[in-house]
Amino acid sequence: MYEKFMKRAIEIAKKGLGRVNPNPPVGAIIVKNGKIISEGFHPYFGGPHAERVAIERAKKKEMDLAGATLIVTLEPCDHHGKTPPCTDLIIESGIKEVVVGMRDPNPVSGKGIEKLKKHGIKVIEGVLENEVKKLCEFFITSVTKKRPFIAIKYASTLDGKIADANGKSKWITHRLRPRVHKLRNFYSAVLVGAGTVLKDNPRLTCRTKNGRNPIRVVLDRKGILSEKNFKVFEKNARVIVFTQNERAKYPEHVEKVITDCSVETILKTLHEKGVDSLLVEGGSDVFSEFLKYADVIYAFYSTKIFGKGLDVFSNVQFSVEEPPRFEIARVKTSDTEIFMELRPCSQE
Amino acid sequence: MYEKFMKRAIEIAKKGLGRVNPNPPVGAIIVKNGKIISEGFHPYFGGPHAERVAIERAKKKEMDLAGATLIVTLEPCDHHGKTPPCTDLIIESGIKEVVVGMRDPNPVSGKGIEKLKKHGIKVIEGVLENEVKKLCEFFITSVTKKRPFIAIKYASTLDGKIADANGKSKWITHRLRPRVHKLRNFYSAVLVGAGTVLKDNPRLTCRTKNGRNPIRVVLDRKGILSEKNFKVFEKNARVIVFTQNERAKYPEHVEKVITDCSVETILKTLHEKGVDSLLVEGGSDVFSEFLKYADVIYAFYSTKIFGKGLDVFSNVQFSVEEPPRFEIARVKTSDTEIFMELRPCSQE
Repeated sequence: MYEKFMKRAIEIAKKGLGRVNPNPPVGAIIVKNGKIISEGFHPYFGGPHAERVAIERAKKKEMDLAGATLIVTLEPCDHHGKTPPCTDLIIESGIKEVVVGMRDPNPVSGKGIEKLKKHGIKVIEGVLENEVKKLCEFFITSVTKKRPFIAIKYASTLDGKIADANGKSKWITHRLRPRVHKLRNFYSAVLVGAGTVLKDNPRLTCRTKNGRNPIRVVLDRKGILSEKNFKVFEKNARVIVFTQNERAKYPEHVEKVITDCSVETILKTLHEKGVDSLLVEGGSDVFSEFLKYADVIYAFYSTKIFGKGLDVFSNVQFSVEEPPRFEIARVKTSDTEIFMELRPCSQE
Repeated sequence: MYEKFMKRAIEIAKKGLGRVNPNPPVGAIIVKNGKIISEGFHPYFGGPHAERVAIERAKKKEMDLAGATLIVTLEPCDHHGKTPPCTDLIIESGIKEVVVGMRDPNPVSGKGIEKLKKHGIKVIEGVLENEVKKLCEFFITSVTKKRPFIAIKYASTLDGKIADANGKSKWITHRLRPRVHKLRNFYSAVLVGAGTVLKDNPRLTCRTKNGRNPIRVVLDRKGILSEKNFKVFEKNARVIVFTQNERAKYPEHVEKVITDCSVETILKTLHEKGVDSLLVEGGSDVFSEFLKYADVIYAFYSTKIFGKGLDVFSNVQFSVEEPPRFEIARVKTSDTEIFMELRPCSQE
């Protein structure tokens, strides 16, 4: 009976996608006598929580919340962070029932359900839990795996080439480009290798209406981009460069991280910097390195054939018996292009 | 107003697919007072024409065809071949109107429309012409280009590999296999290179219910399959081997063709042998050679990744500016596999 309200809560929660990171997007609905009387979502990092928005909006209109039900995607916090605990606010409000999509996997902010129950509030858990987990996948991965959620995004020909035999690659897919910018609007950071910067000089910005630019992460092990100008170094977004070369020089605003540049170190460092989600955009060697961490692959195919050329994953090798396997979560096709969202198959 | 009848004519014509070659599949409907009173299709090569089946079926039931309309996918023949001309039969029957999907591109059997008009029968042309042309594409290619209609069928990983780095390839796609057998049921012949025979020892038969086996064509330039046993040489279907090696020996029932083994010669020879359609099934070198003649590509993808491995088209090279381009005519996806029918883009 709460599914339709939870669906609405998920819907409004999505308005915070790409804005609340590394917090999860959260939506909250207040229902009384079977009708929605108020709603709210977590709008941006550091902003008020969804429950608070919904309750305060109701109070402003002098609504009586006694006996009302709160439907919220994530377990309300019981924690003094950037904002006071939502549990106290709920208890004071007179709300008598709270419906929760999923428990908070973060031990710091968790324990809200326990507190509510102690104060005599009925709590129903697990409504549309899978949908809510999907909504919060960046947050869940970040909290439980201590690394960002990893997406690989490639654009290839039908025969799996991301560049022709001469290394040329621009505009393999056209029509699906808006989808790429949409992804950049949701992911906290975008990563490319130095080779891609040298060859394509991409901006890696988000060119959608009201879009926001992701953090740009460049893997420049040897420092070949040192003392040169590239579009990724422009000041319109935060830039982090990983390098092994202590002498490499980048523009002043660029955060230079000198490390062994292993994928593990990169992911740990980005996690510590608050990056909950990383869109890996190339090239072939970088795709090969990050493949084993991929939580999702966004594969864009154009219906062209190159024959000889640069492979998507040129630097890994799997046998026919044990290749990485994926499931198709989404497919979109036009006359001449295909987009697939692929998720790793659960281990058998 | 005739579209729905033509649609039905196309539908029943399809029952002859894979049986009538190198004739086209043809369907015919007789309509009187807005109702279908008889129908027929060309059932097998050398069998009665669709118009004849429909008219004779009506006569058997002592129906009066005076003033009736005949809807037929292809222009009726005016030619004494394996059967007498359909035009005479139509004229005698009393039918007053003939609706034709497309003109017969074959100058030998054509001229039927002219004859009908001379005898006062009203002829309407071009109803669902594109659909009928699609239905007859093997026949049209055969008659106009003097070569078989060419299909390339490959099964690859997401990254365009048809075998792993050790050359292993079996069972890249599973669930879509029935679709492969369905193709073998329609195509007159199937072609593979000697390397594929050596490595996979395929049967290349059609394992669908009531299926018929295609002619098996093997390209064995150097004669490496000489004096060995392979499943493609079994007697359950006609076998043609192209070789440059005069001394190569194959089982007695195998038709050995000694030529330069160029694609052009192979296609010309197969055309002369009555092959109107050829399904090219591998391997990589053979795909590369036949690519420029491909009238359609049937691409089967599994959602696996091999990394290093054997490319679908390992022996051709196209630049990003001028690659072969295709349009998606059909897509089917399951959780873990994708099938696409791709048609060459018309030259711009």
